[in-house]
Amino acid sequence: MSTKLILSFSLCLMVLSCSAQLWPWQKGQGSRPHHGRQQHQFQHQCDIQRLTASEPSRRVRSEAGVTEIWDHDTPEFRCTGFVAVRVVIQPGGLLLPSYSNAPYITFVEQGRGVQGVVIPGCPETFQSDSEFEYPQSQRGRHSRQSESEEESSRGDQHQKIFRIREGDVIPSPAGVVQWTHNDGNDDLISVTLLDANSYHKQLDENVRSFFLAGQSQRETREEGSDRQSRESDDDEALLGANILSGFQDEILHELFRDVDRETISKLRGENDQRGFIVQAQDLKLRVPQDFEEEYERERGDRRRGQGGSGRSNGVEQGFCNLKFRRNFNTPTNTYVFNPRAGRINTVNSNSLPILEFLQLSAQHVVLYKNAIIGPRWNLNAHSALYVTRGEGRVQVVGDEGKSVFDDKVQRGQILVVPQGFAVVLKAGREGLEWVELKNSGNAITSPIGGRTSVLRAIPVEVLANSYDISTKEAYKLKNGRQEVEVFRPFQSRDEKERERFSIV
Amino acid sequence: MSTKLILSFSLCLMVLSCSAQLWPWQKGQGSRPHHGRQQHQFQHQCDIQRLTASEPSRRVRSEAGVTEIWDHDTPEFRCTGFVAVRVVIQPGGLLLPSYSNAPYITFVEQGRGVQGVVIPGCPETFQSDSEFEYPQSQRGRHSRQSESEEESSRGDQHQKIFRIREGDVIPSPAGVVQWTHNDGNDDLISVTLLDANSYHKQLDENVRSFFLAGQSQRETREEGSDRQSRESDDDEALLGANILSGFQDEILHELFRDVDRETISKLRGENDQRGFIVQAQDLKLRVPQDFEEEYERERGDRRRGQGGSGRSNGVEQGFCNLKFRRNFNTPTNTYVFNPRAGRINTVNSNSLPILEFLQLSAQHVVLYKNAIIGPRWNLNAHSALYVTRGEGRVQVVGDEGKSVFDDKVQRGQILVVPQGFAVVLKAGREGLEWVELKNSGNAITSPIGGRTSVLRAIPVEVLANSYDISTKEAYKLKNGRQEVEVFRPFQSRDEKERERFSIV
Amino acid sequence: MSTKLILSFSLCLMVLSCSAQLWPWQKGQGSRPHHGRQQHQFQHQCDIQRLTASEPSRRVRSEAGVTEIWDHDTPEFRCTGFVAVRVVIQPGGLLLPSYSNAPYITFVEQGRGVQGVVIPGCPETFQSDSEFEYPQSQRGRHSRQSESEEESSRGDQHQKIFRIREGDVIPSPAGVVQWTHNDGNDDLISVTLLDANSYHKQLDENVRSFFLAGQSQRETREEGSDRQSRESDDDEALLGANILSGFQDEILHELFRDVDRETISKLRGENDQRGFIVQAQDLKLRVPQDFEEEYERERGDRRRGQGGSGRSNGVEQGFCNLKFRRNFNTPTNTYVFNPRAGRINTVNSNSLPILEFLQLSAQHVVLYKNAIIGPRWNLNAHSALYVTRGEGRVQVVGDEGKSVFDDKVQRGQILVVPQGFAVVLKAGREGLEWVELKNSGNAITSPIGGRTSVLRAIPVEVLANSYDISTKEAYKLKNGRQEVEVFRPFQSRDEKERERFSIV
Repeated sequence: MSTKLILSFSLCLMVLSCSAQLWPWQKGQGSRPHHGRQQHQFQHQCDIQRLTASEPSRRVRSEAGVTEIWDHDTPEFRCTGFVAVRVVIQPGGLLLPSYSNAPYITFVEQGRGVQGVVIPGCPETFQSDSEFEYPQSQRGRHSRQSESEEESSRGDQHQKIFRIREGDVIPSPAGVVQWTHNDGNDDLISVTLLDANSYHKQLDENVRSFFLAGQSQRETREEGSDRQSRESDDDEALLGANILSGFQDEILHELFRDVDRETISKLRGENDQRGFIVQAQDLKLRVPQDFEEEYERERGDRRRGQGGSGRSNGVEQGFCNLKFRRNFNTPTNTYVFNPRAGRINTVNSNSLPILEFLQLSAQHVVLYKNAIIGPRWNLNAHSALYVTRGEGRVQVVGDEGKSVFDDKVQRGQILVVPQGFAVVLKAGREGLEWVELKNSGNAITSPIGGRTSVLRAIPVEVLANSYDISTKEAYKLKNGRQEVEVFRPFQSRDEKERERFSIV
Repeated sequence: MSTKLILSFSLCLMVLSCSAQLWPWQKGQGSRPHHGRQQHQFQHQCDIQRLTASEPSRRVRSEAGVTEIWDHDTPEFRCTGFVAVRVVIQPGGLLLPSYSNAPYITFVEQGRGVQGVVIPGCPETFQSDSEFEYPQSQRGRHSRQSESEEESSRGDQHQKIFRIREGDVIPSPAGVVQWTHNDGNDDLISVTLLDANSYHKQLDENVRSFFLAGQSQRETREEGSDRQSRESDDDEALLGANILSGFQDEILHELFRDVDRETISKLRGENDQRGFIVQAQDLKLRVPQDFEEEYERERGDRRRGQGGSGRSNGVEQGFCNLKFRRNFNTPTNTYVFNPRAGRINTVNSNSLPILEFLQLSAQHVVLYKNAIIGPRWNLNAHSALYVTRGEGRVQVVGDEGKSVFDDKVQRGQILVVPQGFAVVLKAGREGLEWVELKNSGNAITSPIGGRTSVLRAIPVEVLANSYDISTKEAYKLKNGRQEVEVFRPFQSRDEKERERFSIV
Repeated sequence: MSTKLILSFSLCLMVLSCSAQLWPWQKGQGSRPHHGRQQHQFQHQCDIQRLTASEPSRRVRSEAGVTEIWDHDTPEFRCTGFVAVRVVIQPGGLLLPSYSNAPYITFVEQGRGVQGVVIPGCPETFQSDSEFEYPQSQRGRHSRQSESEEESSRGDQHQKIFRIREGDVIPSPAGVVQWTHNDGNDDLISVTLLDANSYHKQLDENVRSFFLAGQSQRETREEGSDRQSRESDDDEALLGANILSGFQDEILHELFRDVDRETISKLRGENDQRGFIVQAQDLKLRVPQDFEEEYERERGDRRRGQGGSGRSNGVEQGFCNLKFRRNFNTPTNTYVFNPRAGRINTVNSNSLPILEFLQLSAQHVVLYKNAIIGPRWNLNAHSALYVTRGEGRVQVVGDEGKSVFDDKVQRGQILVVPQGFAVVLKAGREGLEWVELKNSGNAITSPIGGRTSVLRAIPVEVLANSYDISTKEAYKLKNGRQEVEVFRPFQSRDEKERERFSIV
């Protein structure tokens, strides 16, 4: 049966993954057109004359964390279909299992944790040690039923879980359940971008979240001061509620007939005041050694001699073995590196095949002091820039040739840049770092300056005529910058001369 | 030339089919993301607080049958883009050739018939016996033209036709002509779901039908009492009209220059009062033996020793040989079977490759007395449940954690369940059977209980913390039900004990 | 680095191209469903009761050419998402480098020129002769900087450029920069169809153009008399502006630090009054011999003994070698040919793989004197008919069975025909020629008459019953026309008899 289920799911989810596995040489073919990005309903509001770099407008507290939501009622969020959320999970906190009707991509800004992704039909290939014992009375209020006592001692089996850490990019398909536990010592902070215009989300422009546990919606606590009256029902749908709270006791009791009445009440989240991030008790999840190692290897400091062969977790094949995370800091994800200006790391459908299916991707850009990137535009995606460190100045120009943004940006802000709009960023004195989340599995950027620029590709005479300048000036325009995408700041002629000798 | 045409069509239609044929081992890769499911325009009406199980709201009579249309102006129909129609063809009736600008999927609820699907560019591989004679004067009012007398004796050639029967699922691409003849003794009843949000339908949210024969729209008869004043022009587009009625006589006469003037008038449907389902005269279509046999084989009672080798119909290759029907009752389509609770049969892009292209699929669920299915949700599709037998109770819970439907359903009703919404069904004393038509070529369902449930996939400690219960209770919650998807009703402990001994 | 960039771009753009190259035998599989064609927002205006054959409603003059725009605020343009533009470039004119947020397809109606397409990350494989010298002072007003004098003598490198000519079809992906130079002696006239409903265009229903040079929008000159007051901002977005004009001097100066201040001002298009088509000076672009030859070969009169081996331009592989043009007049693009009635040439994803990705295609139809085509309908696309020669009569019938167009069409007009609508065209005394631009990479047409018609595919008895005629008449209806798609005009019996003897 599970084979059948697996097969069935593979048909849905694993388009690219399958083919990538079967034909590794085909990997470069990757990106099927991302189909179904659809026009937005609010087209009359899409005459974007001004962008804003914004911080979350709403804050919802839970027992062990906070959910912060960006106002998605601005023209740029509405028109791009982006919904952005930051989740802070305190040490020991557990973000309850949930799914969304839209696909999303998450960037882990800080901390470490353990995450589970539930793929329907995949086997429970992880098991706890057989000596694992179930606490008999850790919470005095639960009764015991002797009949299942021996069953308990058999240990627990569940689907794959994995370690997540700062710098990770984690994609999530629509309808797939995920949960996250912070088992580190610091807050686990992540930023999530949901794609409300995805063809995977079928109903309307609202993103809907569905929780499998926790309180019903009526009981959601809110920090009053942050709540703004104009917030519509959209946010309610986004925040979601425990779907089990909507089913009647008899139905749940019939389904889960071995558990006692109190548990049924707990399933429905009655009187649960903890919110959607709860403080976990006695939660010690073991992530397999080789997963940890994989991480370390990525960090470049693999501890030798320790690694097992792995692959001992049983039947893991095809899509059930799909990767659901990728770390920006893996050297193979570095896309551009300029020791004088900065670097660009990319996680797209090449490095994480499921992104081909979700049509989402991410870039991490580090600019050193005063360095500059752009102007450049996205050919096939909108992007949301989330600033993770430092500050800088940004200018964005739209189709009317007017500047629609010309301001400073700083840590914690999001700036949405629509497809085709040209953007230039210049780091401040402390440098500038940000993550770009984009609604394409393989977002392509076209830079105006530098060695890979569009000007380079055009004959000198065409440039000369286009700009009404001499071919000599056109030549300089075209060939002045030998750097790629990220540029070191303007230097005096002396500095430049020195460099010329040392490099060329 | 026809090779060229065929090639050309293959490019359009046969995406999956082709690849499936070329690489059988790739079949499991099937479902490319279904691209282009688009957001609905009426997003502000998509705050679905209440679903309704409904029967057709409108009824249009023809000479030999009835067309019944569900009101698609409700939030759930509008928001999912579903349009549902039930067609009843009386014995001897012929549903005239037509096409739609949206793809659709049809379930044959009762009866048997013969259907033709016209694929542009495919050869006419079926021919009648050479001794076939054309009636010279069966309808006295037609004149004779001696010049084509000898041509008539050459027999008739046409594209493939096939037998359809109760339990069949029949997909239809946008723009492709189909016709259906009831050659059985009972009414041929079918239910069709059109996907108005499909990327194949390009114009607006209205589904449009185009007939190649029959009366022009002005003359459509209607049963007055059922016609509701609020019905918009949408239904008119859905019902369609004879497109030939719009062309001028000279054009048609120039095109069909061999036929007489009266025939031209008939082409345009002038004074035709029969509607779109007409009573056929002298219509004896022969479906090849092996097609019939295939059917019998599927039914499990193949008559041995009778079968020819088939394949004698000439050039049938590639997409021109594409299957356009699949019967639910074929054992290989059984997906879940529980002798104590029921079964689920599925027709999706695995079993019928063209569904990959159309992004539609179907499930047939049989629940025995008092059995239960769910709660479960669709990850990647909306579904329309059409009850074919019995009655039962259904509860649906949305993203707000509130019940949006909690009522009985009975034969002939349709209940639309949006993506992500969790639904549970419990059969009544007579059992409950229904068909789910879904807008994904491979709809994935995630059950909350049972051996393939989402709870199974989550570590016990995570469940314990999520629900604030003991790990012991969590263990029971997770492992209580060993059944898959369909569950037998709650039993007393005695019954259970007996089973434990007999099964385990 | 450029390898990396190339790889990255290949993921986006080259879906089909890649596979076609890797598996030539798979080419016929071509058309993945075109995903993401989306419903239009203005659905309530899509009740199309009347179509109009129209000429451009707006005319914008530049220094060396004219841009003419069809009013896209009519129901048929709005509902199909089509935007049509005709560009006339005078001899010596240069259409400045630009990109659009929507994909488009261009038909070259007249003249010849040179075009460049800039694919991000592809190498600059074309170089001018090393003896090429940069004019030192052709425009006295530019200062000289001695330091780059020697650099200038190294010659120029740029990406591939190619010759375009009458009859060419040229596809353009969203976000990709193109420029065009008329190096011929006649006006270079082309018609472009942009697909505002494409999934590649993400923002709203407006098509946006972005120029890399030229004046800022404020300065756009307009021929007052043609400007109609009801024109909305949509056209402004379509016309676009120089995006560099929106960036501040310092930013540009920092980026292009070798050029002088005046050049920066020129980059921003300050005081530039030339518009977007400028008169080029000293622009002599060399297109490689084998490109020219390829063209001649296509014309059928290849000059023998002259051809070099080509392929000397360096690394041209995979998508960087993608074809961006195809000529209608190439014999292999002829799809239907009837020496008595006319011919149909097609450029689709078969002949130009990138069209699979863009989901656009084109047909060129030539009808001889009084010949007729149709009725036929598009299964999976809307089409825009642009008349290039002669005149004729056209009738279009919609889903309501009513004629929505019945009028003459003539050179220079566009008639938009929605998906599913049946259209018939009859040439006048001078014959009739037109181009159909369609929003599908492989548009399928279904003819009602002729040897590949839908009537042919249906059994005689079904036709007889459908139209309530005798089987004999039905047989004649079905088999009367032996021609394919294009039909010669009605002839007297004598003519017909003569033909019968000479042909059959």
